[in-house]
Amino acid sequence: MKTKRTGSQTVCLTEAPSIIGSAAAVGKKEGEGPLGSSFDIIGEDPYFGEKTWEKAESAMQRLAFFKALDKARITPSQLDYLFAGDLLNQCTASTFAMRDFAVPYLGLFGACSTMAEGLGLAAMMIDGGYADFTCALTSSHFCSAERQFRAPLEYGGQRAPTAQWTATAAGAAVLAAEGSGPYVTAVTFGRIRDAGITDAGNMGAAMAQAAYDTLSCHFQDLGLTPGDYDLIVTGDLGRIGRSIVLDLFRQDGVDMAPFYDDCGVLLFDQARQDVHAGGSGCGCSAAVLCAWLLDGMRGGRWKKLLFCGTGALMSPTSSGQGESIPGVCHAVAISAER
Amino acid sequence: MKTKRTGSQTVCLTEAPSIIGSAAAVGKKEGEGPLGSSFDIIGEDPYFGEKTWEKAESAMQRLAFFKALDKARITPSQLDYLFAGDLLNQCTASTFAMRDFAVPYLGLFGACSTMAEGLGLAAMMIDGGYADFTCALTSSHFCSAERQFRAPLEYGGQRAPTAQWTATAAGAAVLAAEGSGPYVTAVTFGRIRDAGITDAGNMGAAMAQAAYDTLSCHFQDLGLTPGDYDLIVTGDLGRIGRSIVLDLFRQDGVDMAPFYDDCGVLLFDQARQDVHAGGSGCGCSAAVLCAWLLDGMRGGRWKKLLFCGTGALMSPTSSGQGESIPGVCHAVAISAER
Repeated sequence: MKTKRTGSQTVCLTEAPSIIGSAAAVGKKEGEGPLGSSFDIIGEDPYFGEKTWEKAESAMQRLAFFKALDKARITPSQLDYLFAGDLLNQCTASTFAMRDFAVPYLGLFGACSTMAEGLGLAAMMIDGGYADFTCALTSSHFCSAERQFRAPLEYGGQRAPTAQWTATAAGAAVLAAEGSGPYVTAVTFGRIRDAGITDAGNMGAAMAQAAYDTLSCHFQDLGLTPGDYDLIVTGDLGRIGRSIVLDLFRQDGVDMAPFYDDCGVLLFDQARQDVHAGGSGCGCSAAVLCAWLLDGMRGGRWKKLLFCGTGALMSPTSSGQGESIPGVCHAVAISAER
Repeated sequence: MKTKRTGSQTVCLTEAPSIIGSAAAVGKKEGEGPLGSSFDIIGEDPYFGEKTWEKAESAMQRLAFFKALDKARITPSQLDYLFAGDLLNQCTASTFAMRDFAVPYLGLFGACSTMAEGLGLAAMMIDGGYADFTCALTSSHFCSAERQFRAPLEYGGQRAPTAQWTATAAGAAVLAAEGSGPYVTAVTFGRIRDAGITDAGNMGAAMAQAAYDTLSCHFQDLGLTPGDYDLIVTGDLGRIGRSIVLDLFRQDGVDMAPFYDDCGVLLFDQARQDVHAGGSGCGCSAAVLCAWLLDGMRGGRWKKLLFCGTGALMSPTSSGQGESIPGVCHAVAISAER
């Protein structure tokens, strides 16, 4: 059956798949932040028992994966599809995390939008009748990201005030056709937008235009206003990107402020934790969603949530060649009730 | 409607979306190979008018994209979803190729399985009623891949006899609910398999186990034998991986040889072109599919094709840390008639 109107960017999921289990594993710093008590696993050891940062990230991703499956009361072999990806070159945090499990594996690259991209696709696979159980999974690790994207930790490079802090975090969400919710009710996959920002130390500004574009499409497609959601949350624009999104909507005469926040702002305490413009990394929005946000929905704090993953689709090579930073944003509407 | 049985890894697409346009852009060497006359665009300039290898790859990808849209007689703005990815760090060949087009963009990382992964998802989006038009797109470029995965070209490193040659090639396929075919009739997304191979100069051997696994599942799920297809084609195992797949099936008492070939073997002439074990790279199987194979189906040469994209899910970092190479294979069944 047709669930998408021609010309509309948004798909309504008539079967509204249920998120039957979700979990987050994070590092020590993330565990000490304002949302610390909501995370399932807080690793005191940044290596998660492994010998390299890359293997540590894979190990942390597996912890989130198994905890989410536990909560969903299913085994890996029951999963029809796993959507996973991360920031490492060739997405090896995910492929190595999952190589020992016989689950059909669909690799994604959406940078920090990966959880939203995976969640949307995982929900559509169930709504479309192609799967009984699916999982969306992603991670980031401060130490593997620093040495790949910036400089080795030992170098001790200074950070710009606009820079964000890559979260050491992983999130996993398991979906099924039936369950007690929360439910994925609509998906708006976004278009690439390039605001012309060339400063890789200012990702929030680079991605804000994409967030504005996808959110605007979502509201228009469904005839909604921001106030129709209890919470609209981007991830991860940080403080600067968040303020740009507010400005862009203000220019349209829309006040997003009462309903809008950002996972990169929520994850860390600005006063206590030295993260400059906020958190980032695939794991940031994934962990905030899979723990604090979904738990809050299960607990009755919010009934309607719009989760908007934002990704900066650049690489050190593209920045080194003087290119600006393309951004993308995927929005997933989640409801406590069907 | 349910189109997938629980426990089966294969989805049958009841609406069998049509591939309404496909095209391939390749480099000079690929154009001089046995399939040269089937490619839409052969670039004499390896830079495709750009200043870096990475930008050249993006430019080549755009050429394939526009040619496929032309043949499909649609504009970029009519596309509901674009599935794209490549081998470059953070998949920038695709994100930078597509950043100026307002098409909902779903980034994939499947290494050389990307075209099969994208084609399967693009078909399911239409079959599921989520889209009118979708596109699967990918590329690889010998020069951008060499300097990222191996050594700068100027270094002139020797190649092992087991090594494959990354094709300079891009392929694009546009799908719609209606059309004169060929039609995507079934999709088997594969599981990660790790054969324990650690030699990054022997990718074919690393991926062969994954190809065997997905093909076996596909045949079992649908109650088929290899002879039910006119052609089964992997991409890209090369000569060594291809012979391992034949051996693995022979152990099961199944002779695949009469029906089986590999895009990495087909793309280059072993006697005339110095590519050792054959071609590889996301663009290899994509270009062979989007030109020679689909044209052959349109021309009546084959009625039933099983296209199996194989990916090596490693990175230079994982190999440097002594890890073995996980492989994955996604199979897409394509039929000239519905």
